[in-house]
Amino acid sequence: MDAQHNVRTESDAFGPVEIPADRYWGGQTQRASAVFEIGEERFPTCLIRTFGLQKLAAARANRRLGTLDPHLADAVEAAAREMWEGRFDDHFPLRIWQTGSGTQTNMNANEVIANRANEGLGQPRGTRHPVHPNDHVNRSQSSNDTFPTVMHLCTALEVRDRLLPELGGLRDALAAKATEFDAVVKIGRTHLMDAVPMTVGQAFDAFARQIGAGIDRIEATAPRLHLLAQGGTAVGSGLNAPAGFDVAFCEEVTALSGLSVAPNPSKFEGMGAHDALVEVSGALNVLAVSLIKIANDIRLLGSGPRCGLGELVVPNDGLSSSIMPGKRNPTIAEALVQVAFQVIGNHATITAAGASGAFELNVAKPVLIYNLLQSIRLLADGTRVFTTKLVRDLDVDRDRLAANVANALLLATALNPVLGYDRVAEITRKAMSEGTTPRSAAIALGLITGEEYDRIVDPVAMAARINAH
Amino acid sequence: MDAQHNVRTESDAFGPVEIPADRYWGGQTQRASAVFEIGEERFPTCLIRTFGLQKLAAARANRRLGTLDPHLADAVEAAAREMWEGRFDDHFPLRIWQTGSGTQTNMNANEVIANRANEGLGQPRGTRHPVHPNDHVNRSQSSNDTFPTVMHLCTALEVRDRLLPELGGLRDALAAKATEFDAVVKIGRTHLMDAVPMTVGQAFDAFARQIGAGIDRIEATAPRLHLLAQGGTAVGSGLNAPAGFDVAFCEEVTALSGLSVAPNPSKFEGMGAHDALVEVSGALNVLAVSLIKIANDIRLLGSGPRCGLGELVVPNDGLSSSIMPGKRNPTIAEALVQVAFQVIGNHATITAAGASGAFELNVAKPVLIYNLLQSIRLLADGTRVFTTKLVRDLDVDRDRLAANVANALLLATALNPVLGYDRVAEITRKAMSEGTTPRSAAIALGLITGEEYDRIVDPVAMAARINAH
Amino acid sequence: MDAQHNVRTESDAFGPVEIPADRYWGGQTQRASAVFEIGEERFPTCLIRTFGLQKLAAARANRRLGTLDPHLADAVEAAAREMWEGRFDDHFPLRIWQTGSGTQTNMNANEVIANRANEGLGQPRGTRHPVHPNDHVNRSQSSNDTFPTVMHLCTALEVRDRLLPELGGLRDALAAKATEFDAVVKIGRTHLMDAVPMTVGQAFDAFARQIGAGIDRIEATAPRLHLLAQGGTAVGSGLNAPAGFDVAFCEEVTALSGLSVAPNPSKFEGMGAHDALVEVSGALNVLAVSLIKIANDIRLLGSGPRCGLGELVVPNDGLSSSIMPGKRNPTIAEALVQVAFQVIGNHATITAAGASGAFELNVAKPVLIYNLLQSIRLLADGTRVFTTKLVRDLDVDRDRLAANVANALLLATALNPVLGYDRVAEITRKAMSEGTTPRSAAIALGLITGEEYDRIVDPVAMAARINAH
Amino acid sequence: MDAQHNVRTESDAFGPVEIPADRYWGGQTQRASAVFEIGEERFPTCLIRTFGLQKLAAARANRRLGTLDPHLADAVEAAAREMWEGRFDDHFPLRIWQTGSGTQTNMNANEVIANRANEGLGQPRGTRHPVHPNDHVNRSQSSNDTFPTVMHLCTALEVRDRLLPELGGLRDALAAKATEFDAVVKIGRTHLMDAVPMTVGQAFDAFARQIGAGIDRIEATAPRLHLLAQGGTAVGSGLNAPAGFDVAFCEEVTALSGLSVAPNPSKFEGMGAHDALVEVSGALNVLAVSLIKIANDIRLLGSGPRCGLGELVVPNDGLSSSIMPGKRNPTIAEALVQVAFQVIGNHATITAAGASGAFELNVAKPVLIYNLLQSIRLLADGTRVFTTKLVRDLDVDRDRLAANVANALLLATALNPVLGYDRVAEITRKAMSEGTTPRSAAIALGLITGEEYDRIVDPVAMAARINAH
Repeated sequence: MDAQHNVRTESDAFGPVEIPADRYWGGQTQRASAVFEIGEERFPTCLIRTFGLQKLAAARANRRLGTLDPHLADAVEAAAREMWEGRFDDHFPLRIWQTGSGTQTNMNANEVIANRANEGLGQPRGTRHPVHPNDHVNRSQSSNDTFPTVMHLCTALEVRDRLLPELGGLRDALAAKATEFDAVVKIGRTHLMDAVPMTVGQAFDAFARQIGAGIDRIEATAPRLHLLAQGGTAVGSGLNAPAGFDVAFCEEVTALSGLSVAPNPSKFEGMGAHDALVEVSGALNVLAVSLIKIANDIRLLGSGPRCGLGELVVPNDGLSSSIMPGKRNPTIAEALVQVAFQVIGNHATITAAGASGAFELNVAKPVLIYNLLQSIRLLADGTRVFTTKLVRDLDVDRDRLAANVANALLLATALNPVLGYDRVAEITRKAMSEGTTPRSAAIALGLITGEEYDRIVDPVAMAARINAH
Repeated sequence: MDAQHNVRTESDAFGPVEIPADRYWGGQTQRASAVFEIGEERFPTCLIRTFGLQKLAAARANRRLGTLDPHLADAVEAAAREMWEGRFDDHFPLRIWQTGSGTQTNMNANEVIANRANEGLGQPRGTRHPVHPNDHVNRSQSSNDTFPTVMHLCTALEVRDRLLPELGGLRDALAAKATEFDAVVKIGRTHLMDAVPMTVGQAFDAFARQIGAGIDRIEATAPRLHLLAQGGTAVGSGLNAPAGFDVAFCEEVTALSGLSVAPNPSKFEGMGAHDALVEVSGALNVLAVSLIKIANDIRLLGSGPRCGLGELVVPNDGLSSSIMPGKRNPTIAEALVQVAFQVIGNHATITAAGASGAFELNVAKPVLIYNLLQSIRLLADGTRVFTTKLVRDLDVDRDRLAANVANALLLATALNPVLGYDRVAEITRKAMSEGTTPRSAAIALGLITGEEYDRIVDPVAMAARINAH
Repeated sequence: MDAQHNVRTESDAFGPVEIPADRYWGGQTQRASAVFEIGEERFPTCLIRTFGLQKLAAARANRRLGTLDPHLADAVEAAAREMWEGRFDDHFPLRIWQTGSGTQTNMNANEVIANRANEGLGQPRGTRHPVHPNDHVNRSQSSNDTFPTVMHLCTALEVRDRLLPELGGLRDALAAKATEFDAVVKIGRTHLMDAVPMTVGQAFDAFARQIGAGIDRIEATAPRLHLLAQGGTAVGSGLNAPAGFDVAFCEEVTALSGLSVAPNPSKFEGMGAHDALVEVSGALNVLAVSLIKIANDIRLLGSGPRCGLGELVVPNDGLSSSIMPGKRNPTIAEALVQVAFQVIGNHATITAAGASGAFELNVAKPVLIYNLLQSIRLLADGTRVFTTKLVRDLDVDRDRLAANVANALLLATALNPVLGYDRVAEITRKAMSEGTTPRSAAIALGLITGEEYDRIVDPVAMAARINAH
Repeated sequence: MDAQHNVRTESDAFGPVEIPADRYWGGQTQRASAVFEIGEERFPTCLIRTFGLQKLAAARANRRLGTLDPHLADAVEAAAREMWEGRFDDHFPLRIWQTGSGTQTNMNANEVIANRANEGLGQPRGTRHPVHPNDHVNRSQSSNDTFPTVMHLCTALEVRDRLLPELGGLRDALAAKATEFDAVVKIGRTHLMDAVPMTVGQAFDAFARQIGAGIDRIEATAPRLHLLAQGGTAVGSGLNAPAGFDVAFCEEVTALSGLSVAPNPSKFEGMGAHDALVEVSGALNVLAVSLIKIANDIRLLGSGPRCGLGELVVPNDGLSSSIMPGKRNPTIAEALVQVAFQVIGNHATITAAGASGAFELNVAKPVLIYNLLQSIRLLADGTRVFTTKLVRDLDVDRDRLAANVANALLLATALNPVLGYDRVAEITRKAMSEGTTPRSAAIALGLITGEEYDRIVDPVAMAARINAH
């Protein structure tokens, strides 16, 4: 095929434009590509596919309400369904850094579906007839209500299908470790300093609860995330959409995707503000904080192998240092911590974007949803790798753990109820300065007998204290 | 009184120390004051008073469980109640920048209550007898469980008693404006550019819904905020606390404060992590984002008086410029936006602090709670001033609003369903380039008659479109 | 070719591994790919190419110091040069989310160069002989000094070659507008409210100075950015590197790239901390802040076309709304603001990453440099599009500007030195409440004659006031 | 004195207002106090005193330029000097959360000085005559140029007089430790895992360099921080200020304070944007990052005393746990880390505030400068306490250090140049799995003799490697 056949020319309200012949997009997409040559970041395929779902649901709602000819609706729905299934992932050339309403990506979706629908109706690409991208594919819609609807839908789907299953997996793996190490006593540490005994299981139970609470937090955002702006059209008033379009659209989405969505009672709110998405990001921010704590504890407890704390044994990942042969590092925990840093920074971007709305439109939609979807993806993947390649194979060094407990100074804390704080302080000070055990210091001070000491200061009992409740 | 009488000398496990004679604090507080000479920030009085509530509930729980002599418990409870009532606000000299566990402030509370209780029992200050700050006031407790308990309680109380009422007031004031301006048509704006008509009431309804959702978000944090670490003592295991102490404590707190609190199933989680507080901060962060949007819209819509948008009339605050006599500025909205910036930054601090826990203790407690309580206080106060001194007296400039609607170009959008997108684009382009109305352009292009145009392009009907659903 | 031929098997210290036959990477890379299945983000090609430069300079330094056989050095240098030139961009499969030292990407570079060098020496891929990835390509190096060296070099090159030229272009375009609109008087606005006159040129001069200062800020980071950790090897001590390696390396880099680099006097500092890169990000953060101010001012001054401020005319980008035909939006300014939000969030990520170092290594290197390079790229591209497609074609609406100035109330401020603040306040209050001009109010109050007023209150003279200095 | 005498009544352009009789402020201040009942945060005294300096310099410039009667100038200067000296610290009742221009605080300064000057001229407070707060004290000024001038001046003075001396002290203390521990060998750690030997001195040298570079970064902001907006008056044009006022003002400031300040070439830039202050905050943000690294390393290296790394001995601060008697914690390092978290969050607030300017004025000035001055103060104080009460008395545990080095596995890395990476990997793997030393593993594998091993693997030589350069 010679060069002249590699492009086709389309004309729209703004004049003619050349488009790669094998692409389904049209003039607005092509023009926007040339305008916004910024960076390389593109929307993830999940967002493009969700556009397919949105256009499909919109066409079905229009058909029901009589605002789209059934013949055209058939063609639009078929094309939209293909988009939903991922067939047009390569037909969205635009980058994130475009109009703040995401208009060009909505136009991109309209154009791809129109071209594909017309193709199905026997027309070549670029005819804009009988299916017109704005008049039919975008029927009863505007970018201003469509794009935020896709933002909510895609976020809800990614949370439900990608993130929550992985979080559940991590929570369960941590809980399994809590059970596995239920009877393994270790020294607790506060201020990084040796404190009183506990079990390894208790530490992992706390981790599991952090993730469990993280799941609850994310689920708590649903009442607002599941409200959709669709039906607001240009500014929120619903101009050019038939009465009931918002309800019909949500019913179709629910039927297609299983998500229980409902119309936002104020479309104006759903288009001018994105508080619901800032809220979701806030929940992910807490999750990032939890993961940093968990990963760092595991890294520190696994430090060594000979000059660190060495209480945990991190599984070998088969990788090593470029200069220190045989060195093993907690690489997966480091990857997870880096994911968490990204999520925290994304939250700052999302917060700034969320605060920037003016009047009837927030025009930082692309950057906001790009960051939010990245956070979800990274947390899901990072969590999965952490669960499957690190947590499940974590082990403990029982000798090291036992030695540390035996060596600990503040076991004497158990004497407080018997001797009182001030006299126990004398004991630990003496043991500390003389390098002895608190037991011998206590006896030397004449405060207690060895038998009594051993009865009261029992690390296993001390660690298990909470279980007695 | 001569200088030598202005101080008393107390001795504890670390030796003697001089303390101002009229203060109830003791040696650990005095020593810590000298160590941490950093900045001037102190805990707000609500935190100090919540310590009174916490020590009162702990003493009552100890009494119930038989771990505190009733005679001593009487004295401790009386002193703790005074602290709760605010009597000792001036007896907490320590600044925020101290040990990360808040230990010194817990010791401060223990010392004040012990001294006051002993005073009640006829002893001079500083005797540490019969009530000992650690052995009795801190009975069954550690700073490590006490301080996070106070963090949760104080946050929950401030949210309930200070913040939510003001947010409710703002939501109601905005909703009242939505009703008041229900029939006032205005031009909508997207991308800051003129779009299609709507009502002023719709804009205020969106604001009201933002705040309403903000209230829901804050309330959604309660299931985790109302879990308390009390009972974990040193590391989370509950060493030296009697079985059932956590439950008894929470019952006492509920009885005293009306808050429905419960023991954290993992005290380790509640001491090593502060995810629940990062979560609350995240909800406040969304609120800040909402307030910025609302305040900025009001500022912009009220800009002028002659060269701005001038659609809203911001009430006169009685203040002016130092050089431009008679100038009126939207000062209160500016104050609110600044409050929101502070809350956003505080959220960054809280996130960093929350992520910094290690092992059995997060040691960024003071900075975390200082920022969280500041955010709550500022949002409550800022909201109240905004409601009472700005929102309630906001008015509209009906002439300006009507002129803008009459002048708007994109009214022609209402023709889309009749003429199709491409022909309407012709109309608006023509009107734009020739400086005419879209009506005359549409007629000149022969696309529609004047009568038809006026029937379809009716700003009032366009604005009210959503109400027809 | 059948499937069994599409892979080759390599063996290293960790056993055999299958690798795509047409790829130059080796076993560590392949294994790492399988471990770190997180997200899709990869290092930009500039980083991969900078690795070529780094390996080339290292080989040349080794050759000079006698630590690399000239025969092997020839082969390594040739392969490294190809990498620098971009030939191996597709041979780096690893994602960002890997070991925090970037070790796997350094190994990737070592393996690609070794395989390519051996190929040049007549060996098939995967032989690890005669050129060994660790012993020869990584000679005198560790990932721990190599990766931070590449981070600094790549940042410095991207700043010099990509960002600063675009910033210079924007500064110049803004300055040209300042000259173009030097004599165009407009009303100034403070608190968004009408204030006293100025020129449009003065506003653009301020913008130009913001960007000029932004350039200065970025350049001010060079003394620290141009210090390299190379030569520190495993922990900073330089173990296994010959004396003088750091100096020789820097000399080679300077000769090859033109960058004036020097050895970091403490390699420990350059490996354990990345303060110099956090500093660069801080300079970009200020630039983001500047760009938000400039873009927002242009958006607001260009708002309308009929119901906004309408003082600037933003060039038409050829794009429109999906529902409002013919609507023009300041899309490019919105794209730039979104870029700025991304940079601000990236700065938060970089700050968290920078603060996370421990002992002799910061292990958040990949996430840190990924964000920093993204910020640079986006700022460069965003600035270029903003300059070429918006700023250069900006125009003013002289009629609107003149009408606003004529209409302004606070022109009366010029009377302060004659009448005093309190009497001028009377004038503006009267004019405001009666809807008249300050001129007629002043005369009506008997404070001044019309002639005097017109002499003193001259908007052109008021605006140009600063030029008289 | 009876109640009616405790207030005086002042009248200004807005009517009468009651003011506490013993306070120097006037009507605008009093009204503003009643409007802005938000929080409790107030400007630090350094800002109030800097207002004294600014008003003094302005009066002197006015006198020189003939725009202020010498008789009135005498009175104004005397009062302003008293303000500079701290006499009126208690006469600034306004909180941070006010108009975004800081107008009310400028008016407060004008009113205090006018009242005090009139008092000096024999008039009672509240006469506004002969010295008028706006016409004379604010002569040739506006809040809009005055407040940003004070922001720059106060920041520059606090940096010079408060922060840099403390940073110099910390850098020197760390450098002294580097010297003290120059010959103490320790095991280096990367990824928290045991690596190869180094000296304790090298670690402290890196810390010292971080702080030294931090000083350089802060000083690098001076060229922009030392540019003042004074002379711009209302919008930047200098309306109502005499020609040369900006230069004269800066000369006076330099003469009075020793700061080398100069007029901002664009007053518009200095009033509409605060990039220079965002830049300073960025430098403080890097410093916070450095301090977190240093404090965390010290905390971790000092962890124990028996179950941690235990290589450093943190001095005893005389404080302890409330439940674990005798427990010693690195409290001062924790306080410093918390300060750093605050600075990082303040930077986020400052960034948001800095990005919020519109047209000729940034109206987030109070929140911006409040956060910036808090960051400076906290960093200065935190650094001083850290230096004087922790760093200077840090010690090492030589036995622990030596045992760790002896125990380390990756000493074998020194064999790389002799045996090659792959064979050394065999050695370490064998030693690891068999729990032996690398020396015996190497010999057992027949790769080297004991003599050769001991010659090559010499921890002291390995650690000192870099010094040989």
